[in-house]
Amino acid sequence: MHHHTGRHFLQIPGPTNIPERVLRAMSQATIDHRGPEFAQLTLEIQDGLRHIFQTEGPVVIFPASGSGAWEAALVNTLSPGDHVLMFETGHFATLWRDIAVRLGLIVDFVPGDWRHGVDLQALEDRLAGDDGNTFKAVAVVHNETSTGVFSRVDLIRKVMDQVGHPALLLVDTISSLGSMDYRHDEWGVDVTVASSQKGLMVPPGLSFNAVSEKAHHAARAAGLARSYWDWERHIDLNQSGFFPTTPATNLLFGLREALTLLLEEGLDAIFARHDRHAGATRHAVAGWGLDLQCADPLAYSSSLTAVCVPDGCNADHLRKIILDRFNMSLGSGLGKVKGSVFRIGHLGDFNDLMLMGTLSGVEMGLALADIPFTKGGTTAAMDLLISQSEGVAQTL
Amino acid sequence: MHHHTGRHFLQIPGPTNIPERVLRAMSQATIDHRGPEFAQLTLEIQDGLRHIFQTEGPVVIFPASGSGAWEAALVNTLSPGDHVLMFETGHFATLWRDIAVRLGLIVDFVPGDWRHGVDLQALEDRLAGDDGNTFKAVAVVHNETSTGVFSRVDLIRKVMDQVGHPALLLVDTISSLGSMDYRHDEWGVDVTVASSQKGLMVPPGLSFNAVSEKAHHAARAAGLARSYWDWERHIDLNQSGFFPTTPATNLLFGLREALTLLLEEGLDAIFARHDRHAGATRHAVAGWGLDLQCADPLAYSSSLTAVCVPDGCNADHLRKIILDRFNMSLGSGLGKVKGSVFRIGHLGDFNDLMLMGTLSGVEMGLALADIPFTKGGTTAAMDLLISQSEGVAQTL
Amino acid sequence: MHHHTGRHFLQIPGPTNIPERVLRAMSQATIDHRGPEFAQLTLEIQDGLRHIFQTEGPVVIFPASGSGAWEAALVNTLSPGDHVLMFETGHFATLWRDIAVRLGLIVDFVPGDWRHGVDLQALEDRLAGDDGNTFKAVAVVHNETSTGVFSRVDLIRKVMDQVGHPALLLVDTISSLGSMDYRHDEWGVDVTVASSQKGLMVPPGLSFNAVSEKAHHAARAAGLARSYWDWERHIDLNQSGFFPTTPATNLLFGLREALTLLLEEGLDAIFARHDRHAGATRHAVAGWGLDLQCADPLAYSSSLTAVCVPDGCNADHLRKIILDRFNMSLGSGLGKVKGSVFRIGHLGDFNDLMLMGTLSGVEMGLALADIPFTKGGTTAAMDLLISQSEGVAQTL
Amino acid sequence: MHHHTGRHFLQIPGPTNIPERVLRAMSQATIDHRGPEFAQLTLEIQDGLRHIFQTEGPVVIFPASGSGAWEAALVNTLSPGDHVLMFETGHFATLWRDIAVRLGLIVDFVPGDWRHGVDLQALEDRLAGDDGNTFKAVAVVHNETSTGVFSRVDLIRKVMDQVGHPALLLVDTISSLGSMDYRHDEWGVDVTVASSQKGLMVPPGLSFNAVSEKAHHAARAAGLARSYWDWERHIDLNQSGFFPTTPATNLLFGLREALTLLLEEGLDAIFARHDRHAGATRHAVAGWGLDLQCADPLAYSSSLTAVCVPDGCNADHLRKIILDRFNMSLGSGLGKVKGSVFRIGHLGDFNDLMLMGTLSGVEMGLALADIPFTKGGTTAAMDLLISQSEGVAQTL
Repeated sequence: MHHHTGRHFLQIPGPTNIPERVLRAMSQATIDHRGPEFAQLTLEIQDGLRHIFQTEGPVVIFPASGSGAWEAALVNTLSPGDHVLMFETGHFATLWRDIAVRLGLIVDFVPGDWRHGVDLQALEDRLAGDDGNTFKAVAVVHNETSTGVFSRVDLIRKVMDQVGHPALLLVDTISSLGSMDYRHDEWGVDVTVASSQKGLMVPPGLSFNAVSEKAHHAARAAGLARSYWDWERHIDLNQSGFFPTTPATNLLFGLREALTLLLEEGLDAIFARHDRHAGATRHAVAGWGLDLQCADPLAYSSSLTAVCVPDGCNADHLRKIILDRFNMSLGSGLGKVKGSVFRIGHLGDFNDLMLMGTLSGVEMGLALADIPFTKGGTTAAMDLLISQSEGVAQTL
Repeated sequence: MHHHTGRHFLQIPGPTNIPERVLRAMSQATIDHRGPEFAQLTLEIQDGLRHIFQTEGPVVIFPASGSGAWEAALVNTLSPGDHVLMFETGHFATLWRDIAVRLGLIVDFVPGDWRHGVDLQALEDRLAGDDGNTFKAVAVVHNETSTGVFSRVDLIRKVMDQVGHPALLLVDTISSLGSMDYRHDEWGVDVTVASSQKGLMVPPGLSFNAVSEKAHHAARAAGLARSYWDWERHIDLNQSGFFPTTPATNLLFGLREALTLLLEEGLDAIFARHDRHAGATRHAVAGWGLDLQCADPLAYSSSLTAVCVPDGCNADHLRKIILDRFNMSLGSGLGKVKGSVFRIGHLGDFNDLMLMGTLSGVEMGLALADIPFTKGGTTAAMDLLISQSEGVAQTL
Repeated sequence: MHHHTGRHFLQIPGPTNIPERVLRAMSQATIDHRGPEFAQLTLEIQDGLRHIFQTEGPVVIFPASGSGAWEAALVNTLSPGDHVLMFETGHFATLWRDIAVRLGLIVDFVPGDWRHGVDLQALEDRLAGDDGNTFKAVAVVHNETSTGVFSRVDLIRKVMDQVGHPALLLVDTISSLGSMDYRHDEWGVDVTVASSQKGLMVPPGLSFNAVSEKAHHAARAAGLARSYWDWERHIDLNQSGFFPTTPATNLLFGLREALTLLLEEGLDAIFARHDRHAGATRHAVAGWGLDLQCADPLAYSSSLTAVCVPDGCNADHLRKIILDRFNMSLGSGLGKVKGSVFRIGHLGDFNDLMLMGTLSGVEMGLALADIPFTKGGTTAAMDLLISQSEGVAQTL
Repeated sequence: MHHHTGRHFLQIPGPTNIPERVLRAMSQATIDHRGPEFAQLTLEIQDGLRHIFQTEGPVVIFPASGSGAWEAALVNTLSPGDHVLMFETGHFATLWRDIAVRLGLIVDFVPGDWRHGVDLQALEDRLAGDDGNTFKAVAVVHNETSTGVFSRVDLIRKVMDQVGHPALLLVDTISSLGSMDYRHDEWGVDVTVASSQKGLMVPPGLSFNAVSEKAHHAARAAGLARSYWDWERHIDLNQSGFFPTTPATNLLFGLREALTLLLEEGLDAIFARHDRHAGATRHAVAGWGLDLQCADPLAYSSSLTAVCVPDGCNADHLRKIILDRFNMSLGSGLGKVKGSVFRIGHLGDFNDLMLMGTLSGVEMGLALADIPFTKGGTTAAMDLLISQSEGVAQTL
């Protein structure tokens, strides 16, 4: 353990740097979860969430981590033995698959190389070949937190429509919601899974299911056993501002404040900011002469960047040096890419100088870890930031 | 909605008044849940929790409300179609029963009048008559939050031992842990269910399962589908200070601080304090000439008191007046006793003058609500507090 | 030292119980005191302060305790050897006198018995007899924090006008501003002295001078040496939102929030609330059979009540018992009344149940300290609160 | 006004970035300033301050900004008409001179070019020529916040001793204490002036006088009128943990926490850290091809760096661009160097990546402001940080 001064740079791809306004909001005195003040809190949050998810429908809020919302999406819509189509886009897609299996579902897990998004051709092939509509759901990860690769949910929907397959579309937006463009209603998503600790800028402990009418309807017939995750009483009680179990009041205080911040900035500005920081980060990586884990330029994530270290180098050794010397946390390579990849989170409450501190820490870490690289990545990043600085500061 | 000045009196039986030290701790910047600082946090918390639960075994921490921990206790230990013996001690026992049923268990729900604790004779009869050891678990609520009645878990264990029944003993301590004496190991409990927002003095959002070796062993054979609630990876990873999913970091910051406070005061002092405040509250109720919901003096809860309003009076009308005029939240009557009972929480971070403010608010509310009562309950409460004030302030 | 749980009852007559919103506001990150965000902060605060002081003129804000603002009122308006008329209404009037003497002023200190306000007849006599207008200032304490006696500033002004005396009128409102009606402009006050930690509900560290045009004009000729306290550059720079020296930024964050709270409640409601709580407190004192330090019913303070203990009893012993056993701080007797008086602050962010907790603590303390008294003061207080509860909760 | 996300970079040379632990400490509930808990707070703070000032003597704490402590140093030790020797090292030395003049002292103000520290030869000449010991005090600024130039207080003391002059030595350490080596006792300083908002990492509102025995003795004879600033009752009451006027309790809560942080890190580590960051900043400035305001390499400040913009460029235009685009506050040129200088604060709670964010912001700002410069200053700074990174992270 070391002595560290100044702000920690929490540059894992979530939990993100929580705004001090959100942290302060969470330290308000807990209130009666059955009183009128609470009802108002819930209703304000529901309004804000609908705006962020871009939906008119209900958004169920669980006191739970994102894994809970993954589970909820499945148990509310499916029955034991149902078939689900999933895609191996990375570590988190794999974990979601594991949950489905554990719950008694049969998963067709389309293999992937962890460097590309959902294979639309494979999707079309699988669905077109599914004459009996065996697949009850297609479940995809919008933005793979383990690889920095995102998938085109709008095109996935298009393929499903073209094939005319009635499966439900379940989408994990844990590391994209509030950072990258996402449209629950317009893209015809049936269940959107999200959690609090990334683009939503709230500490972990809340997770979400946005629910389409079709999904809500499917829930009535779904046979998987469920109690905690059951949507029905949430959707019912939320309308008057309450919850079926004791809600995580202080996290909701934080969420209300975070939604206020997000709406103050505006979704378009938020997405543009994340795009710009992701672009500058890729400039830096290119400047260093390192490879991106994402092999498809059309699938670059705007919320995080996974960087490959050269063969023979250890990304975790680099991360340790950076943590010890520069008080910055980076994301490790997960699963298949453990040790060969490190991940830079540039999402949430972030700005140009935080990014430059982050990239400088990586550049200095590369030098101290004796990883072969070219100096000057940070300068390349600054060039991009300068060239795109016009639109940054928006008049309120 | 009204304008209110000063501190709100949150005298529902939980969430309780959260100490400012805990609220402030929760506003620390979120940290990397996979870094060394986090591991230290987890290990400190595990130590503290073991002390509070009075166990040497593992305590699993879920980012979830108490209902989640109820569900976890069942799905980790039981299989579809298993028989469970439960007791209708009140509203929360009934809710737990409902969960068990929803999960596919078969519940023998021993009826009760909501004014007494678990009927030990009925327990003995049921178990003695269960020749085939059909009951896989006995599940009881230690302290019924809806009625202010507690049950003698030590005697329940004794009955089970005397009968020689091998069922697991599952106990809900949601409104007693950290307020009333409770001993997981000594009393031979297999799963203790608890949550953060009552005696533990942390906002809602965390819940717990303390797990005996026998329960841990049973988990291997338990056939109920589970993923989020699965103990195994928690118990495993907790040992090095980590969690299988993203933990609710800032609530854990709060929990660490709350455990520090609890250990500073000491369990004996905590229990004595709650006993004393409960006693003073009952003196007040007697002074007002009102009835307690708890009909058994040996089963009076020390963390809350449920008070009956006279026939023809509406307890919710009284509560509304008290909220509007005196900025105090009291607990409503739940389920069967809706409208005829109100509940005073006197647990958590509490002291004599907060209690006197609370009781004064009730006394003034009774007057304003035109409920027949005798003035002077507060004076009676003060008499008891004075007579028992010697031991209160403990030299540090 | 003792172990205490629950909220401390800070019932000294200031610093008062600071609202959590104000405490949280103070924990915002410090900002550049020369930047645009700071200018906005200053201007908002100036607006709010003018409303509270009921003035159109400037209000100078010092990073200093109230004693600084006392000194500032003198050094900005007077010259060495100037004569000042002051009144011995209590301990704080005496302290202000001492400062004047230390700065080289000649004080005519009209003696008093510490149980009445400013003697209007003595004022008239002194001024009428001051043919040469020797008195350059009349300096009075609006509300004597040491005795719970207030003086009629409007009538003081009237007397000065009737006599036609040109002296400046300097008024200390440290324990009345924001709690009791006070009108800087309407009452023709030249300098109002105030500080942050009482009715303004901000921690100590800020103090104020509201300045009339006449006082501002007098400052140009005033010969007392001054630098830190000099108004001129404050008044000048405040107009664009800045300060001549580094301002106490985080206390100003707190002040902005406190002003928001005060304006939300409204001055009339604030004054009525303080009147009501003072009335209930006096009912309690009467019920206990104890005497008030204030001997004039027209001069009862609404922000604090000083209570006499019977001869032979020690008020400080009582206070110590109450602090040790009940975790409540009361004000001590100061100066002449040390040991024979204790003071109950009922100002600032306060409500009925906090008051009842407070009075219950006093009643129990009296019993434990073996001070002769009659039980039932708290019941008397409740009677008054009930009878006056109609108007309390105001619809927003 | 613009919309800004992420952390503001507060890189003025004070107030500095306040650690979140300090901000949170300040949001504790205000306590009775005459109670036992307060006494303990004061005594802990006094201990910590003595360590930081490196003195065994008393340190007087004023609820006031630094200007107040300047005034206090003068009014406690001098009499009207006394002669004081001061040096024009920059803007703040000039402001202190102004105060002395306003208070009726006669100042011999040795002219300077704002690019060097105190001229030791001039000091020697003045003192040697002062046959009648007319100078009662020599008053110098240790670290000129307006120029980034520091003066050798140890050598100033040496000169005074060599000449054998009995004048008091008064030293302003407002922007050096807690950042650069400073030794009140060892260097024979009589009054050290400091304030809370820079190296001490507490928001503004507290200021300090460390007082030597000689100064304390001089205070008895000093004839300048004083009340608020008078040391005597502070020194007296502080010994039992109290203050003569209401102290700024919540700022003291912050100070206690900040002292804990400073002692955790250790003075040697703190000084080394500031030296290293100052060195890296100068590397960046050299890399950009810009000039430092400080013309003497032996006098470079370690807490801030003042940078000259090329002739014809406007430093305030640059600062505005950096604030608008990059959410960073830099210090402006003050007085004589307004518009031609900007100042980078690198003191207080700071680290390598915060510095790199800061320097990146300057580099990008220079580009956007069309100021002629050479790219690569940030790279140069990283080179130095890497080469000196060994000792940074200290094992606790």
